[in-house]
Amino acid sequence: MHLISYDIQEDALRVKVAKTLIQYGLHRIQYSVFMGEVKDAALAKIEQALVGFAAGNQWSAQDSVMILPLHQYSEDYVQFFGVSPARWQEITGEMHTLIL
Amino acid sequence: MHLISYDIQEDALRVKVAKTLIQYGLHRIQYSVFMGEVKDAALAKIEQALVGFAAGNQWSAQDSVMILPLHQYSEDYVQFFGVSPARWQEITGEMHTLIL
Repeated sequence: MHLISYDIQEDALRVKVAKTLIQYGLHRIQYSVFMGEVKDAALAKIEQALVGFAAGNQWSAQDSVMILPLHQYSEDYVQFFGVSPARWQEITGEMHTLIL
Repeated sequence: MHLISYDIQEDALRVKVAKTLIQYGLHRIQYSVFMGEVKDAALAKIEQALVGFAAGNQWSAQDSVMILPLHQYSEDYVQFFGVSPARWQEITGEMHTLIL
């Protein structure tokens, strides 16, 4: 399980990055936060795409993308106040399937 | 170490939640993502504040706050593309100090 979050100023670039993350199997948890099971090969593709985006002229000096690998512990103890992400059971179900 | 992220529509409420998180020792990593070492007592205070906010009339039906406890593994393998958070060494330094 990985969490990927971003601060990207340019709308068009932000949409492009979001689409890339979803394409490689991440789920949108919040507006700028994504989570999912991504295999090493998909992660390498995401990183390659990010390096390309970061080198492009839409990338601002304040923009950042964080890639955070999660331990099962995080998934076991996560809490939501307010609305839980759509398809949360499915997302965490995927994880359990991979772990068991 | 905890990661707390939010989607909060109302500006005034978002500012109030951000201030609460920072008050209890979290650091702003991205616009809507915070991280830090929070003791159980501080976490209980944050949760209590969030329950209060979520019950208030500024809270929208789409708003969410995620509280994700992090394992050392996440901190060891986190990556940033673009700008790294201000005081990142200090934030992770705090963590190492608490672990060792």
